[in-house]
Amino acid sequence: MSELPRIPRSPEDDLAAAAVAERRALAEQAAGRALPHLAGEPVPPASARGNIENLIGYAQVPVGIAGPLRVRTSAGPTEVYVPLATTEGALVAAYSRGMRLTAAGDLCSRVTADGLSQHPVLVYANTDEALAAAETAVGLRAEFERITAGLTNHGALSEVATRVIGRRLFLRLVFTTGDAIGINMAANASDQCARALAERTGAEACYVHGQDVEKRANARALIEGRGRSTIADVTIPRAELERMARVTPEQMAAIGRTYAVGYAQLGTQNWLVQAANGLAAVMLACGQDVAYVTECSTGFLDLEVTASGDLYASATLPSLLVGTVGGGSGQGTARECLEILGCAGDGKANRFAELIAATVLAGDLSLMAAFCTHEFVGAHERLGRNRPTK
Amino acid sequence: MSELPRIPRSPEDDLAAAAVAERRALAEQAAGRALPHLAGEPVPPASARGNIENLIGYAQVPVGIAGPLRVRTSAGPTEVYVPLATTEGALVAAYSRGMRLTAAGDLCSRVTADGLSQHPVLVYANTDEALAAAETAVGLRAEFERITAGLTNHGALSEVATRVIGRRLFLRLVFTTGDAIGINMAANASDQCARALAERTGAEACYVHGQDVEKRANARALIEGRGRSTIADVTIPRAELERMARVTPEQMAAIGRTYAVGYAQLGTQNWLVQAANGLAAVMLACGQDVAYVTECSTGFLDLEVTASGDLYASATLPSLLVGTVGGGSGQGTARECLEILGCAGDGKANRFAELIAATVLAGDLSLMAAFCTHEFVGAHERLGRNRPTK
Amino acid sequence: MSELPRIPRSPEDDLAAAAVAERRALAEQAAGRALPHLAGEPVPPASARGNIENLIGYAQVPVGIAGPLRVRTSAGPTEVYVPLATTEGALVAAYSRGMRLTAAGDLCSRVTADGLSQHPVLVYANTDEALAAAETAVGLRAEFERITAGLTNHGALSEVATRVIGRRLFLRLVFTTGDAIGINMAANASDQCARALAERTGAEACYVHGQDVEKRANARALIEGRGRSTIADVTIPRAELERMARVTPEQMAAIGRTYAVGYAQLGTQNWLVQAANGLAAVMLACGQDVAYVTECSTGFLDLEVTASGDLYASATLPSLLVGTVGGGSGQGTARECLEILGCAGDGKANRFAELIAATVLAGDLSLMAAFCTHEFVGAHERLGRNRPTK
Amino acid sequence: MSELPRIPRSPEDDLAAAAVAERRALAEQAAGRALPHLAGEPVPPASARGNIENLIGYAQVPVGIAGPLRVRTSAGPTEVYVPLATTEGALVAAYSRGMRLTAAGDLCSRVTADGLSQHPVLVYANTDEALAAAETAVGLRAEFERITAGLTNHGALSEVATRVIGRRLFLRLVFTTGDAIGINMAANASDQCARALAERTGAEACYVHGQDVEKRANARALIEGRGRSTIADVTIPRAELERMARVTPEQMAAIGRTYAVGYAQLGTQNWLVQAANGLAAVMLACGQDVAYVTECSTGFLDLEVTASGDLYASATLPSLLVGTVGGGSGQGTARECLEILGCAGDGKANRFAELIAATVLAGDLSLMAAFCTHEFVGAHERLGRNRPTK
Repeated sequence: MSELPRIPRSPEDDLAAAAVAERRALAEQAAGRALPHLAGEPVPPASARGNIENLIGYAQVPVGIAGPLRVRTSAGPTEVYVPLATTEGALVAAYSRGMRLTAAGDLCSRVTADGLSQHPVLVYANTDEALAAAETAVGLRAEFERITAGLTNHGALSEVATRVIGRRLFLRLVFTTGDAIGINMAANASDQCARALAERTGAEACYVHGQDVEKRANARALIEGRGRSTIADVTIPRAELERMARVTPEQMAAIGRTYAVGYAQLGTQNWLVQAANGLAAVMLACGQDVAYVTECSTGFLDLEVTASGDLYASATLPSLLVGTVGGGSGQGTARECLEILGCAGDGKANRFAELIAATVLAGDLSLMAAFCTHEFVGAHERLGRNRPTK
Repeated sequence: MSELPRIPRSPEDDLAAAAVAERRALAEQAAGRALPHLAGEPVPPASARGNIENLIGYAQVPVGIAGPLRVRTSAGPTEVYVPLATTEGALVAAYSRGMRLTAAGDLCSRVTADGLSQHPVLVYANTDEALAAAETAVGLRAEFERITAGLTNHGALSEVATRVIGRRLFLRLVFTTGDAIGINMAANASDQCARALAERTGAEACYVHGQDVEKRANARALIEGRGRSTIADVTIPRAELERMARVTPEQMAAIGRTYAVGYAQLGTQNWLVQAANGLAAVMLACGQDVAYVTECSTGFLDLEVTASGDLYASATLPSLLVGTVGGGSGQGTARECLEILGCAGDGKANRFAELIAATVLAGDLSLMAAFCTHEFVGAHERLGRNRPTK
Repeated sequence: MSELPRIPRSPEDDLAAAAVAERRALAEQAAGRALPHLAGEPVPPASARGNIENLIGYAQVPVGIAGPLRVRTSAGPTEVYVPLATTEGALVAAYSRGMRLTAAGDLCSRVTADGLSQHPVLVYANTDEALAAAETAVGLRAEFERITAGLTNHGALSEVATRVIGRRLFLRLVFTTGDAIGINMAANASDQCARALAERTGAEACYVHGQDVEKRANARALIEGRGRSTIADVTIPRAELERMARVTPEQMAAIGRTYAVGYAQLGTQNWLVQAANGLAAVMLACGQDVAYVTECSTGFLDLEVTASGDLYASATLPSLLVGTVGGGSGQGTARECLEILGCAGDGKANRFAELIAATVLAGDLSLMAAFCTHEFVGAHERLGRNRPTK
Repeated sequence: MSELPRIPRSPEDDLAAAAVAERRALAEQAAGRALPHLAGEPVPPASARGNIENLIGYAQVPVGIAGPLRVRTSAGPTEVYVPLATTEGALVAAYSRGMRLTAAGDLCSRVTADGLSQHPVLVYANTDEALAAAETAVGLRAEFERITAGLTNHGALSEVATRVIGRRLFLRLVFTTGDAIGINMAANASDQCARALAERTGAEACYVHGQDVEKRANARALIEGRGRSTIADVTIPRAELERMARVTPEQMAAIGRTYAVGYAQLGTQNWLVQAANGLAAVMLACGQDVAYVTECSTGFLDLEVTASGDLYASATLPSLLVGTVGGGSGQGTARECLEILGCAGDGKANRFAELIAATVLAGDLSLMAAFCTHEFVGAHERLGRNRPTK
């Protein structure tokens, strides 16, 4: 695998036009096309059709690139620069550093499951009626599949399950959605399925979204997953870790254990360290719905010393809700950033999810190493402008 | 209070240049200044100094305005248009509709508490040493205050608490931070305090962030709050609710009860309906760190029928982490959007938090009403372009 | 259905030998046999064979009866006295009061699902190996069923599922277990299945219990259920509620909504009010393993006003782990109490679970009504001896 | 410290009268008195006065002793046999084995905090009124203290805090309660305080228990603690661990890490392994309210390899709700078991909590070692009678 060049930095003024242009040229090479909107050409209002109402213009958020990120995906080995939109100083640098660490190992990332769940809820007079409706629902599976098939050629209904709480029936409908998140299709299909059931069973009320896991951290997502469940893992040789990050595998494992106690006391479903940072930055750059960061950033970071004394690390992200078609992914800078990643359009959603999980792992490794060496505050002071002005 | 005009929409092509310009003119009137960057003028790279590394350009995200939002804040009644950056079709329209609903009542919003917690953790040989260090920490409060005072003129240390789990001491340091989120200052102060304690007590290890609640949904944030705890509430007269949203207070209370069962089963700390949507959109427009949406979107929505038959609704957001100075808030489109809200710069953070909580409440009311009337899917189909292409 | 007599109480001294004997005679009539051990005849040490080591004697805990409890079960309508072992004054009286309330309606209880899950965990070198082992596990289902069949004639393996987190494979094996809890059989079968898988896939480590839900409140149990998932519900006519409990359906629904906010803030999986009390008392009386109260007492209480103005109430208990054979259920006072309930031996576990859920609902209704009328503290002062002695 | 003798076992028939009597004699020596009720003498009905209604007799549950348990408490080193009431075969043996392990180290246990919280809730017309009432509540602290002082000589009000959610005010009142759990006193004081506040502030409703943490696992208890927060810890020399339990410190740490992942996925507040077993058994033997096992069994188990290669282990139990006076602790077998522990009556509650935490740690160490060596299933098969009968 031929390596991509290191990202150029200008020691004098890294925000000078020339420095920015040099990096953008690198990104254009990676994308295989020009990136005019990232360079400042305004995205025309019409590009936002269907994505917004009452448009007054476009917000501009700085985008940096981290990398190169080298990773084996389900479609083979690849190497990319990762566009990150953020205003948190030191963040891009931290992810870049993490990607150098993971490049010292055999970073691997794969989607392990794929399905978008919806949970419409129907209310009945009592438990017996709700239980009877649950049976009816299971029997209507073929009809639910027909309803779904009538709404999309890219997805399908893959699971129908039921749970009754008191007099309420919670349907669990899971859909495959192709390369889109597919929430509008899934909500539409769920609505029609739930209404069909409601009519047949005389429900008192029927709500399409029900106890939806949508856009919130929750225990269910951690257990069942939602969207694309993705895991990235890597073993980093001890010598490389010590050389590059000045920490030992034992130190990394130790800080992981301490943080786990903290997370347990907090009561959180996010056992990753800074997943929300990396997710928000790459999702924002790539035109994803950043409200999903709430749900996507649940998961696990694992740091352990291997029998041979190296560092094993994994990031498990059970609920990645991202798409390479639909939503805000098709126009302007979103499309440009997806092309930098080689992830624009059909057939690319798994690759996109896998690159994201790999990025999250790289960022968490970098931050944990910084916490071990007490460099965290220093880096923010040095790179961030937010030092106290007194 | 003189009312702001309704936001103009063009029935033919709402994304035509003239329609966009007309609305932007309205926003400029509200901001009291021109908004060139929202209009497309590129933000210069140098504006991102301290906010990013490896810059290659700027991502552009469409911004629409919702409103007018009329609300009593802690600094008096006000009326604003709310800039929302999103690519989810129907979202801005939904928030606008919600703001018309809340304008029919006496919408009120106030910050009820303010403090940024940090939780450094120190590891000792055993429980007795950790307990002794906890006592030492409490005794060092004056020194911790001096350390903090040496780092900032805008904030101060306001609380020192301790908790020992096994052989680990978790410090809880709470800071006031002025109008910034203040995370860098607080992390820096925590680091210095924790290290001072570690040296004095012979800690085996000392980690600045500890079991930090930072950027993750968690149970602790729901109980203690973090950042600015804010509550918005309103009583909407039955007749207005029925006229505008075609639902009764009883229907709204009923859907609220059903959703509560769903959230309980999910295991979530976010009892609001679409808080993540509104938060992500306003935070993105206003240059906030959208990774905080994970933490900010924990809270409660309450929907109840009053004794007089009207609808009482409240949104409690215990952990709003937003700032009007520092971070990405000072430049380009972020600054422009904050000025549309009348929230740029010093002394504005409480107002900003209160407008956000009011916006979240409006959006949740709108969506719950839509769920009641089964308009949710329809609106997404009509306004969003994401209808299935088959 | 012929009604059982009210439980006799002596106004002078309810603990006088005659009063106790009169009630025990009633219980003996219900059991259709003498109850010598409840009356004081020591249970012989040999009865504890297999249930304990290092025996020194028997603890004695007072048992009272609540009721009559009238309820439709999955095997038809029935009426029982419920034995409760407790030292919390006012508890039995509260459950009795609740049973009078539910008798005014159409109390119904049914087991909706039945299966004991076990979650052995296997650790591999990396994610790829764990994923490969997960596939192998699914393919070994027939072998796992054979292993299970070799260990029991009463149960069977009913589900095999897998989930990978990092490099760990969590198996989910669900067993039917007849009328026993069946934990020893299930643990044994899980152990053998997991070891068979471990050998075939070269696992680094294999732990039989894994992330077991066993004997702890947890979010998973709330979503998936464990043991016998049971729901009891009733509609109590407004007039009866007002006459007997001096509260309106609206007051009951209102306190339910307020408590729900409290539980949400707490972060609990137990949305019932005093489930732990009733469960502990009936499980202790009936020789169940009271450590399971932790897990059994997760669930939901629902209180709502019906369209006709009555009170609808349900108690959903997704994780009832109880048995009428095995464990401590077969001897001494445990057997006697099970016979009072008509629940001793084979074929009775569903009935037992249904009576328990009905009891829990009755107790929660009683306590919520007492909270509404501020009688709670008064009852504890009047009936309990624990008034302050100064 | 002179060592207590090992508990005698009879290889032929350990349940023979002589074997039981020999052990009971040992327990009587420890208690310094005869233990007639454990031996079978019926507890008279009058002993249950105030503890139950509708008494029909006493349940009998087998009690075994584990130990000796050697531990440093806050009142100095001590050595005891621990009475455990259970019908789970192998449980007493497992705890005894664990106590031999902890005796190889420097087992230490101490209460780190003490306070019983109550959370009455008051409902107002809107948020502003609730906030105003919160301020009033803080100002009424002296009056609340007077109310409490009028109800008890053993306890006092130690904290008044407030939190508003929407239009609801949650009071947090913390009480010291001497050597009793003190729930009746605290509930009574809370009721009077809340009503005094309600009258002064015109609350629409006032509920004494509010969002009470009472008798349920919850996130709040894990963060704030309730009752007696207690930590036991020990360092076990590697050689002793290997000799006695046939496991290495590394194996114990490794299984601890794997279980932590499982617990995280489950979503539980109980990070101990079998705390519910030990708590239920000792609480049942000692006349405690076993419904509290739900709340008491939240906490953390920590297993780590020390720098010198030994095993450090701790059990943190933030919410132990136990008492040595009041409730069911004063009569019959409860009193006898408390005397075996040297924990009967005034001034003994801290010692009792510390012995319980030490017991929980011993049991968890034993079980984790058994899981490592795959002895778990075997022990249950050998010692329990619940082997499949086919």
